[in-house]
Amino acid sequence: MSEKQALQAVREQIDKVDKQLQSLLNERTALAHQVAEIKQQSGEQADFYRPEREAMILRQVMERNTGPLSDKEMARLFREIMSACLAAEKPLRIAYLGPEGSFTQAAALKHFGGSAELHPVSTIANVFSAVETEYACYGVVPVENSTEGMVNHTLDRFVSSPLKINGEVTLPIHHYLLSNASQLSDVKKVYAHPQALAQCRQWLGDQLAQAELFPLDSNSEAAKRVAEMGEDSAAIAASTAAEIYGLKVLASNIEDEAGNTTRFLVIGNQNVGPSGVDKTALLVSTKNKPGALQNLLKPLADKGISMSRIESRPSRKGIWEYVFFIDIDGHCQDPIVASALKELESESSVFRVLGSYPKAVL
Amino acid sequence: MSEKQALQAVREQIDKVDKQLQSLLNERTALAHQVAEIKQQSGEQADFYRPEREAMILRQVMERNTGPLSDKEMARLFREIMSACLAAEKPLRIAYLGPEGSFTQAAALKHFGGSAELHPVSTIANVFSAVETEYACYGVVPVENSTEGMVNHTLDRFVSSPLKINGEVTLPIHHYLLSNASQLSDVKKVYAHPQALAQCRQWLGDQLAQAELFPLDSNSEAAKRVAEMGEDSAAIAASTAAEIYGLKVLASNIEDEAGNTTRFLVIGNQNVGPSGVDKTALLVSTKNKPGALQNLLKPLADKGISMSRIESRPSRKGIWEYVFFIDIDGHCQDPIVASALKELESESSVFRVLGSYPKAVL
Repeated sequence: MSEKQALQAVREQIDKVDKQLQSLLNERTALAHQVAEIKQQSGEQADFYRPEREAMILRQVMERNTGPLSDKEMARLFREIMSACLAAEKPLRIAYLGPEGSFTQAAALKHFGGSAELHPVSTIANVFSAVETEYACYGVVPVENSTEGMVNHTLDRFVSSPLKINGEVTLPIHHYLLSNASQLSDVKKVYAHPQALAQCRQWLGDQLAQAELFPLDSNSEAAKRVAEMGEDSAAIAASTAAEIYGLKVLASNIEDEAGNTTRFLVIGNQNVGPSGVDKTALLVSTKNKPGALQNLLKPLADKGISMSRIESRPSRKGIWEYVFFIDIDGHCQDPIVASALKELESESSVFRVLGSYPKAVL
Repeated sequence: MSEKQALQAVREQIDKVDKQLQSLLNERTALAHQVAEIKQQSGEQADFYRPEREAMILRQVMERNTGPLSDKEMARLFREIMSACLAAEKPLRIAYLGPEGSFTQAAALKHFGGSAELHPVSTIANVFSAVETEYACYGVVPVENSTEGMVNHTLDRFVSSPLKINGEVTLPIHHYLLSNASQLSDVKKVYAHPQALAQCRQWLGDQLAQAELFPLDSNSEAAKRVAEMGEDSAAIAASTAAEIYGLKVLASNIEDEAGNTTRFLVIGNQNVGPSGVDKTALLVSTKNKPGALQNLLKPLADKGISMSRIESRPSRKGIWEYVFFIDIDGHCQDPIVASALKELESESSVFRVLGSYPKAVL
C-alpha cells in the first residue's frame, strides 16, 4: 500500500470516529435538555449549572482515562463539551473583571468553557453587583496571586455582599526574560523580584550561568529599569511588561515549575452541594480578648481539619477588630466539618460560611 | 418515578455517553498518531498540521449536523478535539503578537485550539522572525480591522519575508457603552466614531432614543473625552477603554450585527493544499504606465474571479511605484485561478503568491 493509500485509509477511520463523536455529542445535548426539563417541572428554582456535578465528572474522566490522550487534555475537552451542552439549554451569562483580554477573562473561560457568554465589567464591586442584581448568573474575580499576595478588595466585598463562593479557578503564571538585547548571550545581568529569581533558578543556572542576579522590589520595576539599560541587562517579568516598556522577549515560560498560580473565585447565589473534594471559605470575627484566635482555631485542629489559608483584614467597624478569612478543606455538609463549624461559631462574634465549593480540578 | 429518580436515570445515561465519548476521543488520538507515523516513514518533511484538512473536517461537521447542538458549537468542539489530537502528536508552538491577553492571542486560540503552545512576542516583525527561524511552527498577526482599516505593518513585512499565508482568523468586535453615569437613563449624549454610531444605530434607537449623537475621530478619543465629562455623556468604545479611562460599562455588545470583525493571518512555511473553499493572497507591482492597474485586474474580471480586497502600498523602491496586496477567491491550484494568475504575472513587474489558504470556517 502506498503512503497515500495508507493515509487515506486512516483518514477514513478518523472520519468514521468523528461521525460517532458528533452523534454522541448531540445525544449528550439532548440528555442535558431532559435534565433541565425534569428540574423545571419540579417547580423549584432550577440551577442548570451544578459546579459539584461538573467537578465530579471531570475527576471521573481523569481517573478512568487510559490515554493516549493525556488526563489534562481529556478533562479540558470534557469541560468544553459540558459548556456547549449547558449553553444549548440556557446560555450562562458570566460577569468578570475586565477588560477583555484580562487574566480574569482567561480564568472565566477556563472554568465555564468557550460557550458561556462572558461580560467584562470594570471593577470588582461591579462584578458583585452584576451577580447580586442577577444581570449575570455568576461572577469571576481575582483573589490571590502567588507573587503579589491577596487581592484584598475582593475579600472585603464579601463582608457586605450576600453572595456565595461557588468555585475556584487557578491559572498558571509564566515568567519571561525581557531585554533590549536581541540574543541571550548578550545578557550579563538579570533583574527581578527575589521570588521570580527563585522560581527561575534552574533555568537561569542552565542558560545564564555567568549572569549576575539583582533582586528588586517587583518584576515591573525590573522591566522598567531594564528598558533604560544597555543590552547586557534583562528583567524577569510578565509578557505584558514587554509591550509596556518596549522590551524584546528573549525567552518564554522560564519558570522551573508550573506551580506558580493566580487564584480566582466564582461567585454566585447558589449553595453548591458536596463533590467529594471540596473547600469551605469562612468569614469570622473574634471577640477582642487575648487568645481569641487560638480558641477560634482549636476546633479545626482538634478534628484534624486542614486549614489552607487564613487572612486577617481590618473590619472597618472599630479599632482592633479584625475579620478573618479562613479556607478549610471539606464541605460544610460533611458531618465532621459541620460540627467543627458549630464550635467555631460559638467562639465568634461574627460567623459566616462564604461557601463550600469543589476544589479546582484542572 | 420521583424527580430525584428521574434525574438519576438521565445522569446515568449521560455518564454512559461520556464513557463512549472518552473512548472515541482516545481512539481518534491513536489514529492521528498513525497518520503521523505514516508521514514520518515517508521521509519527506512531515507537516502534522494540515490547515486544509482541518477546514474540510469542520465544514463537514457543520453540514451534516442534525442538532440539538448548534453547528457553530459543534464545530468549536471539533476544533478543540483536533487541537488535542495534534498536541498529543507534536505540540504546535505558535508565536503571536503579544502581550498575553491581546486580541491576537484570542485569535491564535480560536484557530489552533487550547492545546497549542502559544508564545507572545512583542512586535509583528518578531512574529515573522520567530517563524522564519523555526522557533515557532506558525505565527498569528493582525491584518485588518473593520473600524481601523489595515494593519499596514503586517503587509509590508511580506515584501521581504519568504513566509506564506497559511490561514486566516476572524474575531467579532464588540462595542460597549461607557460612561461616568451609573445608569443608562442619565445618558443624554453619545460620542463615538461615525462607523461605531452606525453599527449601534438600532440599539441606540431602542435604548437611548432621546440622546444626541456626536461623531468623533475615533472611539478611543470618545472614551477619553467622556471620562472628563459629566454623567449625561457616554462613549461607544472597546471594553479596554473602560479600564484605561476609568469609565463604567453601562451596556455590553451593543452592536446591531455580529458582522463587525478583526482579521488575522496565520503565517508559516507551508504550502497549503486546496480545501474546497479557499482564498489566495497576491503581492503585485505594476509597470509604471497609464492604465497599468486596470490591465492588471482584467484577467481576474475576464475569468469571473472575485476579488475581495485590494490595498496599495508604497514600494519604498522609488517614487510613484506601488505594490498591491490583492485577495481573490479560489486556490492557486484551481485551473481557472492558475491561468488568470499566469496572465496577471505577465502584466506585473513583481508578482508573488503570498499563499492560498482555507477561508475562515468559524
